[in-house]
Amino acid sequence: MKISPIEKRSLVDMAESKVRRAIVDSGLKVGDVLPGEMELAERLGVSRNVMREALSRLRMLGVLESRKRRGMVLTEPDLLGGIAKVLDLPVLGDRAKHDLFELRLVVELGISDLIFLRKTDSDMLLLKRIVIREESMAKGTIVPVECEVSFHTQLYRMAGNETLRRFQSLLEPFFNWESEYDKELGNHPDDGTVTHRQLFEILSSGTVEQFRAAIQKHLQPHIDKINNIRLSEESL
Amino acid sequence: MKISPIEKRSLVDMAESKVRRAIVDSGLKVGDVLPGEMELAERLGVSRNVMREALSRLRMLGVLESRKRRGMVLTEPDLLGGIAKVLDLPVLGDRAKHDLFELRLVVELGISDLIFLRKTDSDMLLLKRIVIREESMAKGTIVPVECEVSFHTQLYRMAGNETLRRFQSLLEPFFNWESEYDKELGNHPDDGTVTHRQLFEILSSGTVEQFRAAIQKHLQPHIDKINNIRLSEESL
Repeated sequence: MKISPIEKRSLVDMAESKVRRAIVDSGLKVGDVLPGEMELAERLGVSRNVMREALSRLRMLGVLESRKRRGMVLTEPDLLGGIAKVLDLPVLGDRAKHDLFELRLVVELGISDLIFLRKTDSDMLLLKRIVIREESMAKGTIVPVECEVSFHTQLYRMAGNETLRRFQSLLEPFFNWESEYDKELGNHPDDGTVTHRQLFEILSSGTVEQFRAAIQKHLQPHIDKINNIRLSEESL
Repeated sequence: MKISPIEKRSLVDMAESKVRRAIVDSGLKVGDVLPGEMELAERLGVSRNVMREALSRLRMLGVLESRKRRGMVLTEPDLLGGIAKVLDLPVLGDRAKHDLFELRLVVELGISDLIFLRKTDSDMLLLKRIVIREESMAKGTIVPVECEVSFHTQLYRMAGNETLRRFQSLLEPFFNWESEYDKELGNHPDDGTVTHRQLFEILSSGTVEQFRAAIQKHLQPHIDKINNIRLSEESL
């Protein structure tokens, strides 16, 4: 006899999913108004408390808003709000952190075309200032972490994609995660054979092909490290 | 006189943010137990209903779970759960969709190194089957959308990063978004000058440098299109 355990979804989970389904099925759009909490509770056959909890979740995600005299309105959310709320808390395991670190690397390796398409003169001026500041602070070949972050943050800005920019700012802590890992391995962060200054020069007067190749070389030590990290984390 | 409007955060918003702050400040980790709902409500000076709503939000994100006899336990969430819940609903505007389309493209342009690092023989066998199936279905140079999706989904799998793979499956609808856009523009999706078969061959017996260059060529028509789309969306 095949018998599976009873699904442990709470009433609130079920109410939440019913409301989602109803929004999709009735073709609601941003700006449309949902029935009131009391009416929804009655139609779903749940208590008002359960209904309120379910709707509160949608409000947190930014897809619903209570407006005076209009009721509950469907709204366009901050797409990355949910992930931001998770990254805020100390709940991610090493595997997830490593995945995010790789994701950040993948994005930086693939972003060159957007940067070339959208960079402006004022972007370049700002990037130049960041490079000059870094050169005044750097000791030998070691670039201070804060300079590292400013330079790459500015590259993301130049790509002209707001979601991508926010995504990067959420992933910024995983810069540090790698630095901590480096300490354990006895390494220090390394920028490969292409410096920020050289990347800047190519952006100023080079081609997108040259820039792609240069970013690849700049990030190569991080790519090489991925293999080592995996090996030493086999136990995960 | 400078005077700013009163912040419109609800009691539930404030309770949620207090609990988050407390989790971070008291150094709680996954597996640690939170005080009960009633105790938290008392300590924050809010009603039990407000407290329940705030905690329900954290449960939805997967960072809290109620366990029998143990109480509320801090848990490791599905990192992309929040974003998945938003993408489920018809609430994203064209700007956000366009951003996601670009993000997907950026990831595909940057993923080559991971694929080369992790591909296995059984991955390659599966990829080969996908290519053969496509060749039996394709009419002239037009690749059916489903073959397009299978091929690229398999590339993501081969990169061996679970977060990245889920991310791609969430972004899959934005393949279609571009196809719809193409229809409006009177174009059909185009795969550049490198076919899936050629990508497969390079993965079998080429170098990572060759693969990077080939993926770039394969995706070039999509990159070229970004500029056109932007121009025709200037009104956004």
